[in-house]
Amino acid sequence: MNNRSIELFDTTLRDGTQGEGISFSSEDKMRIARRLDQMGIDYIEGGWPGSNPKDLDFFNRARNHTFQHARVVAFGSTMRRGNTPDTDPNIQALVEAGTPAVSIFGKTWLFHVRQALGITDEENLDLIRQSIAYMVAHDKEVIYDAEHFFDGYKDDPDYAIRTLECAAESGASVLALCDTNGGTLPHEVAEIVRTVISRLPDTAIGIHAHNDGELAVANTLAAVENGCAHVQGTINGYGERCGNVNLCSVIPNLQLKLGYNCVAPEQMDKLTSLSHFVSEVANVAPFDHQAFVGKSAFAHKGGIHVSAVMKNPSTYEHIEPELIGNKRRVLVSDLSGKSNIQFKADDLGMDLTAHGGKVPEIVQKLKELENEGYQYEAAEGSLDLLIRKITGEWEDLFELRSFRVIIEKNEQGEVLSEATIRLLVNGVEEHTAAVGNGPVHALDSALRKAICKFYPEVDHMQLSDYKVRVLNEKDGTRARVRVLIDSHDNGTSWGTVGVSENIIEASWQALMESMAYFLQQQKITMENHS
Amino acid sequence: MNNRSIELFDTTLRDGTQGEGISFSSEDKMRIARRLDQMGIDYIEGGWPGSNPKDLDFFNRARNHTFQHARVVAFGSTMRRGNTPDTDPNIQALVEAGTPAVSIFGKTWLFHVRQALGITDEENLDLIRQSIAYMVAHDKEVIYDAEHFFDGYKDDPDYAIRTLECAAESGASVLALCDTNGGTLPHEVAEIVRTVISRLPDTAIGIHAHNDGELAVANTLAAVENGCAHVQGTINGYGERCGNVNLCSVIPNLQLKLGYNCVAPEQMDKLTSLSHFVSEVANVAPFDHQAFVGKSAFAHKGGIHVSAVMKNPSTYEHIEPELIGNKRRVLVSDLSGKSNIQFKADDLGMDLTAHGGKVPEIVQKLKELENEGYQYEAAEGSLDLLIRKITGEWEDLFELRSFRVIIEKNEQGEVLSEATIRLLVNGVEEHTAAVGNGPVHALDSALRKAICKFYPEVDHMQLSDYKVRVLNEKDGTRARVRVLIDSHDNGTSWGTVGVSENIIEASWQALMESMAYFLQQQKITMENHS
Repeated sequence: MNNRSIELFDTTLRDGTQGEGISFSSEDKMRIARRLDQMGIDYIEGGWPGSNPKDLDFFNRARNHTFQHARVVAFGSTMRRGNTPDTDPNIQALVEAGTPAVSIFGKTWLFHVRQALGITDEENLDLIRQSIAYMVAHDKEVIYDAEHFFDGYKDDPDYAIRTLECAAESGASVLALCDTNGGTLPHEVAEIVRTVISRLPDTAIGIHAHNDGELAVANTLAAVENGCAHVQGTINGYGERCGNVNLCSVIPNLQLKLGYNCVAPEQMDKLTSLSHFVSEVANVAPFDHQAFVGKSAFAHKGGIHVSAVMKNPSTYEHIEPELIGNKRRVLVSDLSGKSNIQFKADDLGMDLTAHGGKVPEIVQKLKELENEGYQYEAAEGSLDLLIRKITGEWEDLFELRSFRVIIEKNEQGEVLSEATIRLLVNGVEEHTAAVGNGPVHALDSALRKAICKFYPEVDHMQLSDYKVRVLNEKDGTRARVRVLIDSHDNGTSWGTVGVSENIIEASWQALMESMAYFLQQQKITMENHS
Repeated sequence: MNNRSIELFDTTLRDGTQGEGISFSSEDKMRIARRLDQMGIDYIEGGWPGSNPKDLDFFNRARNHTFQHARVVAFGSTMRRGNTPDTDPNIQALVEAGTPAVSIFGKTWLFHVRQALGITDEENLDLIRQSIAYMVAHDKEVIYDAEHFFDGYKDDPDYAIRTLECAAESGASVLALCDTNGGTLPHEVAEIVRTVISRLPDTAIGIHAHNDGELAVANTLAAVENGCAHVQGTINGYGERCGNVNLCSVIPNLQLKLGYNCVAPEQMDKLTSLSHFVSEVANVAPFDHQAFVGKSAFAHKGGIHVSAVMKNPSTYEHIEPELIGNKRRVLVSDLSGKSNIQFKADDLGMDLTAHGGKVPEIVQKLKELENEGYQYEAAEGSLDLLIRKITGEWEDLFELRSFRVIIEKNEQGEVLSEATIRLLVNGVEEHTAAVGNGPVHALDSALRKAICKFYPEVDHMQLSDYKVRVLNEKDGTRARVRVLIDSHDNGTSWGTVGVSENIIEASWQALMESMAYFLQQQKITMENHS
C-alpha cells in the first residue's frame, strides 16, 4: 500500500458526450458538475467551446458558481497553422470560457501530423509551444493532452517525447498521455509510461485511456503504478465507441485496493449514487453489471452462494458494498431456493416464521410467473402482494369489473385517449372515466378517480418511473411486454410489474398492484399505531 | 508475437446463467452450443446436473449431436464428506451426464474449507483426490476448477498449491485458477500464475476470471502472458454479479494483438454475430458499447473524427472492424455536421450531389427531431424518408384520415383489442378494422388490411422487432415514449422510429413509416428495372 495522491480529471461533460446516445443541456452539465465537486473530483472538463458554441453557456454558468474543490476546465485544440494565438478562433474561445484551467490537445503521431494536419514535424511542435505559452501568459493552468500518444510513440518514440518536452517547456502543468484509439495493452502502457517519466521527471504525467480492448481500467492502473499522478476518465465510462475509462471503477481500485489517495473516505460512499445520478441525467439505462456500482455488482443468485454470503459476505464479495454506497442483494430467480425467499421476506419486513410451510408454494408460484416473463428483482411491491396472497395475509380493497380504453387520432391529427373503468370498492360499484396524455395515463387517472373517494390517501402516492421491456422482440407487435412501474410516497418507493401481450393490460396490472400495495402498507401502519 | 495455442473453455451455459436476468431452456442451450462449436471453442460447459436436474435434458440432447470440434463438459463439485464417489449424488449426476469431459470444483481457501464445509484441511484434499480419480477411472477428461484460488493463495500459498498438486496427481488434465470473487488485480494474477507454473510445470494451467474490478480481461491476458494455456469465460461476459470474463474481448486481444492461436482466422469474423446471437437467445439487450463486437465499437460521432476516419480508418480505430465481423458506423447526432449526413446518405444508397444546398436544412431538421426524442442511429428507414421529403424525392403512397383503437377488459377478465382505420390510398378512401393480441398488433393488422388491396407486396414485409423506450421515465405514465420497429423482407432489413406521449401514436408513426419506406424502395427497384 502507498499513500501517493492521484489527481482526478473528469471528462464526462466533454469526451463523455461523444458517446452514442449521450447529450447534455447546459443545465444537465451544471447539475453533474456540482455532484462531481461533492465527490472530490479535482478537475471538471466542461466542453469544447471552440467546436460547440453552446458549451460557452455552461462555462458562463460555471463561472457564477463556487465549486468547493474542483477546477473547471475548457478543452480545445492547438491553434491552426497560419494563425497567431490572438487570431485563432479556438484559442480565443478557450480564453473566453473564463475557466481557471484549460486542456489543450496536440498531435503526437507523425502520421496524423503529416496526413491529417498536412504540416511539417517542426510546425506541429511550434503550434504546441505557442498555444500553451499563450494560455499560460493568460494565467491559465494548462493540461496538455497528447493525442494518440501510445500509437505515436510506437511509431516514433523520439518525436513523441519531443512533443511532450515542448509542452512542458511552454508551461503545461500536466502531460496527459492519451490512448485515443483505445487499443494499447497494459504491458505496453506500463513500459511507455516508465520511459516517459524517466525522460520528463519534473512534470506530472497523466493517463487518458479508452476502452476499445476492454482494458481501460487495467491500462489506467498500470499507468498509475508506473508513476502517473493524474487520471482522466468519465463517470460510467461514457465516451465515443467503447467509451473512456470508467472512473467508477478506477477510483475504488486505486483507493480501496492499492491505497492511493483519490477522494476523502467520506466521499467514497457517494460513488454509487453519483453513477446512478449521471445515468439518470444522461437518460441512459444504468448498466446493472457495472463493476462496484452496478445494481447487480453484489447480487447473489446461486443457492450455495446465497447461503454462504448470508453467513459471511467475504465468501463471495471482493469488497464491502457499503464502502462505495452500494448494497448486497439476493435475487429471486429460477435457481433460487428457500433461503432466497427468506432473505427477501426479511428485506420486505415480513415475518415468515408462522408460514414456513408455505415457502415451497411461494417458490413454485414464482417459478411459474418468471417463466411467463414476470420479474420480481425490481418489483418488491408485486412480490410482497404475491407472498401475502399465499400466506393468507392479503385483503382485496378493490376489485376490477372492467375497463375500456379508446385512443383516437382524428382528421386534424389530434390524438385523444380516454379510459372508462368499473370497480367494486367495499361492495360499492364505481363507474368512472378520465382522459390522459396517452392510454396508460388515462387509465391511471381513471383508477385514481374511482379509488380516491374511498381512500383519499392515494393522492399521497405518485408514479415516479415507467419502463417497458419487449420480451420476445422477434415477434414484432405480437410480442409480450413487461411493464415496470416505480411509485413513491413521502420517503418510500416500491416497484410493481405486469406482463401481457397487450401493453395496456400489462400496464394495468402494474398500476393496480402499485395502488394495492400502497393501500395495504397504509393499513398495516395504521393497525400498528392503533 | 508468439504462436502458442490457447484452449478456449466457454461457460456461458453454466456460469453465465448465474447472471441476473439470464436463463436458458435446453433448446436455447443447444442452439448456443452449436454456434460455439462453429466458432472453434474447445470446451462447452453445459450446466451443473447435480444442482439443476433440468440440465440433464441438455446433456441428453448434446450426446445425440455431433460437434465438429468442441467437447461438452458437465460441471459439479467435489463429493461430500462421508460419501464415497459411488454414493455421492453430485458425482453420479456427472457420470450420468455422459459427457467426454467434466469440470470439478474444489476448495482452495482454508477459510471456506473450515467455515463453509466444516472439514479439516486433509479431508478437503482427500475429497479432491477421490472425486477426480473416480471420474478419470470412468474415462472422463477432468478439468479441475480451483475455487477462490487467488484469495486462498494470498491466505495460505502452500495449502493452495497443495490442492493443485492433489488434483494433478489424481489425473486432472487442466488446473483452472478461479478468481471467484473477481477482485484480484492484474499484477497479482501475473505473480501468482508464475509461481504456480514453476511449482507445477507439467500440468496445463487455466484461468477463470470474474469482472468485479472491471479487470477480468486484463487478468486473463496477464495469466496467459505468464504461461496459462487454458482460458475460461462467457460470451458477452454474462455471469454472476459483474459477470465472468468476456470471451468476445479475450479472443481478439489474444489472437489479433498478441499473436496466440485461439480460433482459425476464418472463424474470427463470426465473433460479432455470435455475440449478438447469444444476447438474442438470452433475451438481453446487447451492450452497444461492448469492446470489439458492440454496435458502437466502431461508431464515430465527432465531426473531426468522422472526416479523418473517412480518409483513413486507422486514424481512430485500433483494429479493422471486419476482422471480427463488425462494421464502421457514422452517427447522425447533435454534434454531427454535413460530412456525417453525406456518409449516411451514401450508406443508404442516395446521391445527394444534386441536392447539396439542402444538406443544412436536413441537419437542422434532424437536430429539431432529436431534441424531441427521435433517434435515427437505428432507424435508417425513417432517416431515408426524412431526407427524401426535404430533397423532394418523396411521394406519399397513402395518407391517414383517422384511426381509433379500443382496448377492453371485460368481467370475465378477457382483454380485446380492436383498431379501426381510415386511409386514403391513390385517392380512394379505405375504411377497415382488425383485432389483435394487443393494440399495436391490431393497428398493424388494420393498416396491412387497408393497404394490401392496393399494394399486395406488403405481404412480403414483416415486422421483426419492436422496442419501447420511455424517454423521461420520471414522468411516470405521462412520459414520452420512443418506439423502434425493425422490419424485413427477403434479405434486407430497416428500422423506423416514432415518438409521442401516447404509445399508440408513437407505434403508429413507426409502423406507418416502415410500410412507407418498404413501398418506396419497391418503387425505386421497379423504376430501375424498367
